[in-house]
Amino acid sequence: MSISPFDHPFLSGLIGDEEAAQWFSAESDIAAILQFESALAKAQATENIIENAASEAIEKACQAFSPDMAALKSAVALDGVVIPELIRQLRETIPLEHRASVHLGATSQDVIDTSLMIRLKAVMTRLETGLSGIIADLDQLEKAFGNNGLMGHTRMQAAIPITVRDRIESWRTPLLRHRKRLDLLKLDFPVIQFGGAAGTLEKLGDKGPAVRERMAALLGLHDTPQWHSQRDIIVEFADFVSLISGSLGKIGQDIALLAQGSTELKLSGGGKSSAMPHKQNPVLAELLVALARYNATQVSGMHHALVHEQERSGAAWTLEWMILPSMVATTTTALRSASTLLGSIESLGKA
Amino acid sequence: MSISPFDHPFLSGLIGDEEAAQWFSAESDIAAILQFESALAKAQATENIIENAASEAIEKACQAFSPDMAALKSAVALDGVVIPELIRQLRETIPLEHRASVHLGATSQDVIDTSLMIRLKAVMTRLETGLSGIIADLDQLEKAFGNNGLMGHTRMQAAIPITVRDRIESWRTPLLRHRKRLDLLKLDFPVIQFGGAAGTLEKLGDKGPAVRERMAALLGLHDTPQWHSQRDIIVEFADFVSLISGSLGKIGQDIALLAQGSTELKLSGGGKSSAMPHKQNPVLAELLVALARYNATQVSGMHHALVHEQERSGAAWTLEWMILPSMVATTTTALRSASTLLGSIESLGKA
Amino acid sequence: MSISPFDHPFLSGLIGDEEAAQWFSAESDIAAILQFESALAKAQATENIIENAASEAIEKACQAFSPDMAALKSAVALDGVVIPELIRQLRETIPLEHRASVHLGATSQDVIDTSLMIRLKAVMTRLETGLSGIIADLDQLEKAFGNNGLMGHTRMQAAIPITVRDRIESWRTPLLRHRKRLDLLKLDFPVIQFGGAAGTLEKLGDKGPAVRERMAALLGLHDTPQWHSQRDIIVEFADFVSLISGSLGKIGQDIALLAQGSTELKLSGGGKSSAMPHKQNPVLAELLVALARYNATQVSGMHHALVHEQERSGAAWTLEWMILPSMVATTTTALRSASTLLGSIESLGKA
Amino acid sequence: MSISPFDHPFLSGLIGDEEAAQWFSAESDIAAILQFESALAKAQATENIIENAASEAIEKACQAFSPDMAALKSAVALDGVVIPELIRQLRETIPLEHRASVHLGATSQDVIDTSLMIRLKAVMTRLETGLSGIIADLDQLEKAFGNNGLMGHTRMQAAIPITVRDRIESWRTPLLRHRKRLDLLKLDFPVIQFGGAAGTLEKLGDKGPAVRERMAALLGLHDTPQWHSQRDIIVEFADFVSLISGSLGKIGQDIALLAQGSTELKLSGGGKSSAMPHKQNPVLAELLVALARYNATQVSGMHHALVHEQERSGAAWTLEWMILPSMVATTTTALRSASTLLGSIESLGKA
Repeated sequence: MSISPFDHPFLSGLIGDEEAAQWFSAESDIAAILQFESALAKAQATENIIENAASEAIEKACQAFSPDMAALKSAVALDGVVIPELIRQLRETIPLEHRASVHLGATSQDVIDTSLMIRLKAVMTRLETGLSGIIADLDQLEKAFGNNGLMGHTRMQAAIPITVRDRIESWRTPLLRHRKRLDLLKLDFPVIQFGGAAGTLEKLGDKGPAVRERMAALLGLHDTPQWHSQRDIIVEFADFVSLISGSLGKIGQDIALLAQGSTELKLSGGGKSSAMPHKQNPVLAELLVALARYNATQVSGMHHALVHEQERSGAAWTLEWMILPSMVATTTTALRSASTLLGSIESLGKA
Repeated sequence: MSISPFDHPFLSGLIGDEEAAQWFSAESDIAAILQFESALAKAQATENIIENAASEAIEKACQAFSPDMAALKSAVALDGVVIPELIRQLRETIPLEHRASVHLGATSQDVIDTSLMIRLKAVMTRLETGLSGIIADLDQLEKAFGNNGLMGHTRMQAAIPITVRDRIESWRTPLLRHRKRLDLLKLDFPVIQFGGAAGTLEKLGDKGPAVRERMAALLGLHDTPQWHSQRDIIVEFADFVSLISGSLGKIGQDIALLAQGSTELKLSGGGKSSAMPHKQNPVLAELLVALARYNATQVSGMHHALVHEQERSGAAWTLEWMILPSMVATTTTALRSASTLLGSIESLGKA
Repeated sequence: MSISPFDHPFLSGLIGDEEAAQWFSAESDIAAILQFESALAKAQATENIIENAASEAIEKACQAFSPDMAALKSAVALDGVVIPELIRQLRETIPLEHRASVHLGATSQDVIDTSLMIRLKAVMTRLETGLSGIIADLDQLEKAFGNNGLMGHTRMQAAIPITVRDRIESWRTPLLRHRKRLDLLKLDFPVIQFGGAAGTLEKLGDKGPAVRERMAALLGLHDTPQWHSQRDIIVEFADFVSLISGSLGKIGQDIALLAQGSTELKLSGGGKSSAMPHKQNPVLAELLVALARYNATQVSGMHHALVHEQERSGAAWTLEWMILPSMVATTTTALRSASTLLGSIESLGKA
Repeated sequence: MSISPFDHPFLSGLIGDEEAAQWFSAESDIAAILQFESALAKAQATENIIENAASEAIEKACQAFSPDMAALKSAVALDGVVIPELIRQLRETIPLEHRASVHLGATSQDVIDTSLMIRLKAVMTRLETGLSGIIADLDQLEKAFGNNGLMGHTRMQAAIPITVRDRIESWRTPLLRHRKRLDLLKLDFPVIQFGGAAGTLEKLGDKGPAVRERMAALLGLHDTPQWHSQRDIIVEFADFVSLISGSLGKIGQDIALLAQGSTELKLSGGGKSSAMPHKQNPVLAELLVALARYNATQVSGMHHALVHEQERSGAAWTLEWMILPSMVATTTTALRSASTLLGSIESLGKA
């Protein structure tokens, strides 16, 4: 099945990313969901809300659990979320006396949002290494070709001579800013989501915040009060990944323009044409433009999801599920493709 | 792998559609690609461009062909399109003397656009049965509850009493218009794409149009001169599927509002909550809103793809691949979900 | 005041259109509103719902009416629509005994939607002459330069030689399709909107449809049952104007690429640079791209407005007001700019 | 002229903002442009690039200058930017011997981007007071009604009881985050743009950075190397204003849902209907939703503008002009409307 190119047997070779496919696989989602349930039990045992024995039984069950996927699929069609059925299946693997301690005080959104956040930790690491890698690639190009001349172009017309260094700076400076943005973002992102049925942790009495804090620590997430209906937290992240793919799209566009048979750029590799075997297509340069425009399109849907009504909007939240993973995959694909493209530059500018 | 919910092992239960998954599978794409190559050979044999023996060999090879998917994936990463490698593989299964007759005069875009169009034929049939099914569902509801009273609402406030019939009319009339739009669309859509390297069919001399016409007939598509850089043809189709999902989103929004604990609507089924077992969630109503907003977001990217530079834009074209299949799947999921939702209405309005 | 470039004292020289400014001026809106009220009274008099004397008084008042704009502005801030205050002002200019006959059975949305439709008639005429003008420009260019050679480009790379005729065909064919789409559209667009408070014309008994039909005839609009919450009618029009600006954007992008110091294009005119007096900027070519992308962005908001809840959505409807006029102005600006740009081509291709 | 509601004689009463109209007026733009030219001359005189007498003459001319608007409008149609003609007009008011010192080393984009930034300073102040005002409004509501009960809703269904305080927290917390984001943003925004023809300040030798730093200080902007083709700086700001309007849209949506004839909310004021004089419409609540969705739509266009080719893209830059001012006006209108709306709450929840 492959409606999305990211999941497609062969298109994913171009428009896809192995790591992104991992992060957003059902397996990774379920693993993170079980981490949540395990951490919840542990934190509740520490706070004397459930018994230690229950926590241990739940942790053990989570480690051994393997879901009935077909049943999950049927249930999600009915419930709109996977958690009720998954918890039902999980409970069946746990001694009767501890079943009520599973998922205690939590709601579907707590688990699903937190599972996403757990996986976004890995995404952020990848964004950082990806950005740093491309910055290093550009440093390298600058060292090799920085003093070469390049015709500066404004409004698609030859303007005045600049240097390769000038052009590279216009590519690199936004990436340096993105890395700085990422550093800032890491100060309070990703975060735990834990609020219970309607955000009030009503079943945990005054122990809600303590449990949440312990869970955050166990999961390696920032602690913060529930934010289930406050989606600026996740939309800001979507903005950020689209800024990255957009900046890479500008590099791609510039390289595609340089590759127009000019003598200022020499690329190795390049794609074949089925009709014109002699042609070398700057496929990855164009891909970067497509990816930038894809995310520029998607980011709009995420901003619409800010209108998240009342304590939980099935409509706005489902819209996020449809959009955010593809945005992340677009950006990591763009990082990979930009790196390959820059690495294929054999010469730039004129000595 | 499941970055997209449409391809996801369990989310596809909610946000997914078996038929759409079929149409956009790699298998269906390759099958349609082989149909193209086969029809091309047949048409060229009839027009005495290639030998009958070549045509027969190609047709036979297309029937037997099973691609090396891993090699396709690697090649698409380099070439940006799957066709050069797929043709290379196909040629290897054909006697040496006929290999040059494979894909003669065609280019990647011819094959990929036409493969899409072949599959959109099935999509259009599904849209038609889907629309007609929902119209019938609404007729049924009208028969059962049309004379019941309903509080009309404007600006989210109770306004004046209307009837269930009035509300149903406001749901059905756009669908009737969509069915009429579909009838009009069918008059010249879907179409063949065949233009060769740069749209001029330069390798076929004056026989280009005749070959194309024959191919269109063989493939069950409308014949039209090449349109590879004229994307209004495909964008108009994207507009259309988004109009459908938008109209269904309005129905979903209205039902979600009716379901707010009012006495005017009784739904059977409805989703469970992991925190509140007593609740009945109008999951499909909200899903319809999410699907409408998803397509409303995507349609923008398709319109950006109208800026398709020169004889072929890798950037704009790739953007279409990333967007259109999801738009179609969104609409067929919406049709399926709307039908289930309407079928679950046990009572509407007040007698 | 000039938040929008379309309304800006100097930016409108580039991004603006005199006619669009006319259609969407407050004056034109009020004139069309008064046409509606006048036609309503006339139709109701003919159907014996109000007295002839009342109809005559209303018609006379509409001709003489000049609103207190400041009061309209204050009222719209409170009511969200201009109609209640405007009707109040209008009634004051009418003899007491006929005041109750003004706006009888109508609601704000009837008037505002129909006023828009009245003005879209003129827009459609302009689209038609605009499209035909550019088609004629392209015919002219073909006659002058069609046999010249041009380097065909795919994926931004020189591919194989084509002719100027080939390129012009790829520009003109979508415009011919748009003109055909316009012909189809005219068969049932623009339409009257008349439904009363919640779409049921409840105050007119069984005479509603007859009144509406007479009004449509008086206003030169197609007659159709109320569609106040069925926005596909207006969204389809938005799609259409964006298809046009998108196709013109492709022409602009191609010309900008041709103008890159190539010997294949010579333009007269072209913009000055404040820093590089020698440069000739293909300003209008780039503008066409910007306009295409502007409409491609906006069209998304119109599709979101399809989720128009219940009998009237203040939210979705207001969103249309914010978007549609700019989309129309973008398209008429694009038509004007494309015509100027094509008219400035002094040579194209190589003899 | 009033294609945009923001500039419309009466719609601006609802969808408009006096201050935004000021910031983006031609007058304010020209005033900021003259500030730029004046600061440029002063900085260049200090750095001994031009004579003090020239700087004084330029400063004096800038203070007295009143442009020929009609000529600006004609010129922008040709040049795509207003600067060449405006500088020409300005030079004519300056003694011949100093004319060459006007605009020395600068290019149109320097002036236009910096003029925008000068005005965004005022915008940021307004965002801060607007956010703080609404936070104070919410504090007030909490004090008055915080302990009242409210039915919590998930998926548009009654879920479990919460308090008014819980709901207010879900409205206020994002605004507190936005205020914190604004504090961070202020650390390096808004910035000067000064790069010359192609970003290299090639006419100022090694004095470029010193001149720029002096100019930034004179204009009250942060100093930073030229960023003319690096649009993440401005797109990040667009993201931010859309996050604000989105969070306010959530408040609007919640209030519209509360206003559905429930006993949990009492609003004073509210709009009139032309057909149903008894109705009280929560006009501003719906407006907030419309504004949120407007900006959610526009933000996409800004992200597309990240693909800003080479040293200056007329296409991508023009697209920003068409979008950003409306986004800012949307957000300030939303801040104003939210404040009025919250101020009209007479009771919330149940004691």
